Amino acid sequence: MSVITLLTDFGDQDGFVGAMRGVLLSRAPGARLIDIAHHVPRGDVVKAARVLKRAAPCFPTGTVHLVVVDPGVGSSRLAIAAEIGGHRFIAPDNGVLGLLGAPTAVHALPIPASASTTFHGRDVFAPAAAALAAGAPLETLGPRVDGLQPLPAASPGVIIEVDQFGNLISNLPPLPGRYRIGAVELDGPQSSYSAVASGELVLVCGSEGTLEVAVRDGSAAERLGLTAGATLTRI
Amino acid sequence: MSVITLLTDFGDQDGFVGAMRGVLLSRAPGARLIDIAHHVPRGDVVKAARVLKRAAPCFPTGTVHLVVVDPGVGSSRLAIAAEIGGHRFIAPDNGVLGLLGAPTAVHALPIPASASTTFHGRDVFAPAAAALAAGAPLETLGPRVDGLQPLPAASPGVIIEVDQFGNLISNLPPLPGRYRIGAVELDGPQSSYSAVASGELVLVCGSEGTLEVAVRDGSAAERLGLTAGATLTRI
Amino acid sequence: MSVITLLTDFGDQDGFVGAMRGVLLSRAPGARLIDIAHHVPRGDVVKAARVLKRAAPCFPTGTVHLVVVDPGVGSSRLAIAAEIGGHRFIAPDNGVLGLLGAPTAVHALPIPASASTTFHGRDVFAPAAAALAAGAPLETLGPRVDGLQPLPAASPGVIIEVDQFGNLISNLPPLPGRYRIGAVELDGPQSSYSAVASGELVLVCGSEGTLEVAVRDGSAAERLGLTAGATLTRI
Repeated sequence: MSVITLLTDFGDQDGFVGAMRGVLLSRAPGARLIDIAHHVPRGDVVKAARVLKRAAPCFPTGTVHLVVVDPGVGSSRLAIAAEIGGHRFIAPDNGVLGLLGAPTAVHALPIPASASTTFHGRDVFAPAAAALAAGAPLETLGPRVDGLQPLPAASPGVIIEVDQFGNLISNLPPLPGRYRIGAVELDGPQSSYSAVASGELVLVCGSEGTLEVAVRDGSAAERLGLTAGATLTRI
Repeated sequence: MSVITLLTDFGDQDGFVGAMRGVLLSRAPGARLIDIAHHVPRGDVVKAARVLKRAAPCFPTGTVHLVVVDPGVGSSRLAIAAEIGGHRFIAPDNGVLGLLGAPTAVHALPIPASASTTFHGRDVFAPAAAALAAGAPLETLGPRVDGLQPLPAASPGVIIEVDQFGNLISNLPPLPGRYRIGAVELDGPQSSYSAVASGELVLVCGSEGTLEVAVRDGSAAERLGLTAGATLTRI
Repeated sequence: MSVITLLTDFGDQDGFVGAMRGVLLSRAPGARLIDIAHHVPRGDVVKAARVLKRAAPCFPTGTVHLVVVDPGVGSSRLAIAAEIGGHRFIAPDNGVLGLLGAPTAVHALPIPASASTTFHGRDVFAPAAAALAAGAPLETLGPRVDGLQPLPAASPGVIIEVDQFGNLISNLPPLPGRYRIGAVELDGPQSSYSAVASGELVLVCGSEGTLEVAVRDGSAAERLGLTAGATLTRI
């Protein structure tokens, strides 16, 4: 059975994801539906790109990833189908695929006249993902287009993501040294969160191989009053 | 494989939905379990009815929809199995099925003496949904009853739902014109959220074909300080 | 098909659960992935143990339960595979399995040198759960160890959990009588929440057979300003 993952900022109170799941099952009855995340902050394309980069490569080759974090729904932004690294992606062309590497093919999805202008997840993206899962080749979904919208690049030494534990994830490699973040200085990376006492700040190598500032059993974001965009500097 | 959808107000911290999923899989091992939503506001039957109307028709005919938004659990309200539009529903008889159209059959579920009085989702509704998914005809679940409890009807020109993006969804058809909501007046419907600049109010035709007040990249509910029950008037 | 349940405190915004699901599907393509809960309060092992006790026994014998509520990730705490009551569990050895009864076998999972020190869910626990689901016997996962870390025992007459409805769940049997909690006294147990008027406090027998303090259509935790650890006394 083919696998379709879902990544949205729709939350879990309105049934928007439920409607998409219904469309997927109606059109690709054999597909397996697997969630990546649905509580991405509303319209946060950069965060969604990070989440997708974290999770998508863990899935088997051939997986169809359906991504609907789409603040430009109804505008002139393209809806696309892309193949990257042996995986297929259905998404708005707004940069959300920008951390996955170079695509081997990108096709634009037609927007049916009957589609609502506010819910392309149900009317455009889910039908396209179901078509791929049911066996349609990527190139049958629409005309080929050149490349993808890029994601704005972050400068080195920036906190690029805050996770729900309040860990501040940077884009720096885990070189040993002394680092400054906000008003504090930290040596690291330490071997794990447990290298310090409960409640203390610690610098570790995170699960994607970059430096991360954490508070053991607490939230570094709250402790330091910082969020994505803050600076981590080796001193 | 038969499909069972789940719609509750149980959230995702206590394992109540997990317990129901376990009961479903134990009794209908071949059924597919698909979520509609679990963060419906606690006990909000009107919202749940809206969510169900949004998502259920997207699923294939024959789907079993298990709905447990049940502030009257343990009272004398009936537990029911209903067939509507080729779909089957298991739910408390509290109006939550009231937006789906006329049922072709309604049967009352017996409440076993061994059932808890606080968790019919696990003890009454999940076993009934599993029985349907495993092939039991609706009429074997309990005695036939006449009709369903209605949902209180909303007057025309009312905001009937606020979604998690803060969009104010009305029950008015998308007739072009000038509209008043709260202290503001808006022309519309516009073609999409993107018809206005980021941060501005916009009136659009929503994904279910009615007028919706939104803020592009923001929350109309917060901007206007309004919620369900507010009035939208054509002027 | 084998069933793997997932119970974490990872929430639904970062894709950490998504990454684990990808690892599971890559290594055990035929396994069914079923959620127990993902919004357990961060690092709350006692709550996770309660949730697991509530949901796990509802699943079929042979189910693999993957539990990652793991404030000690990267420390010297063991990662374990355990068999209890015909179910298999993959979890950190931090007490989270402490309410399930005596294990018939416990094995320690080796921590690969390549594992991150911050995300054993992806690098240690999910691979082990996939191995079990794919047919590996428990004893092939690692060396046998003696027993499990216990969970601190709660004294009788304590609120051991607050659910998302604000119900205060105690560990007292449902003996009829008069009880004191905080500054109020209640007679009970009543037959159901509906035994009192909307907005009133009520003492009932909860879905796991112990006394529970609730407010009909409201939150007892908010009304009384109490949380887990509060005392319920028969007077």
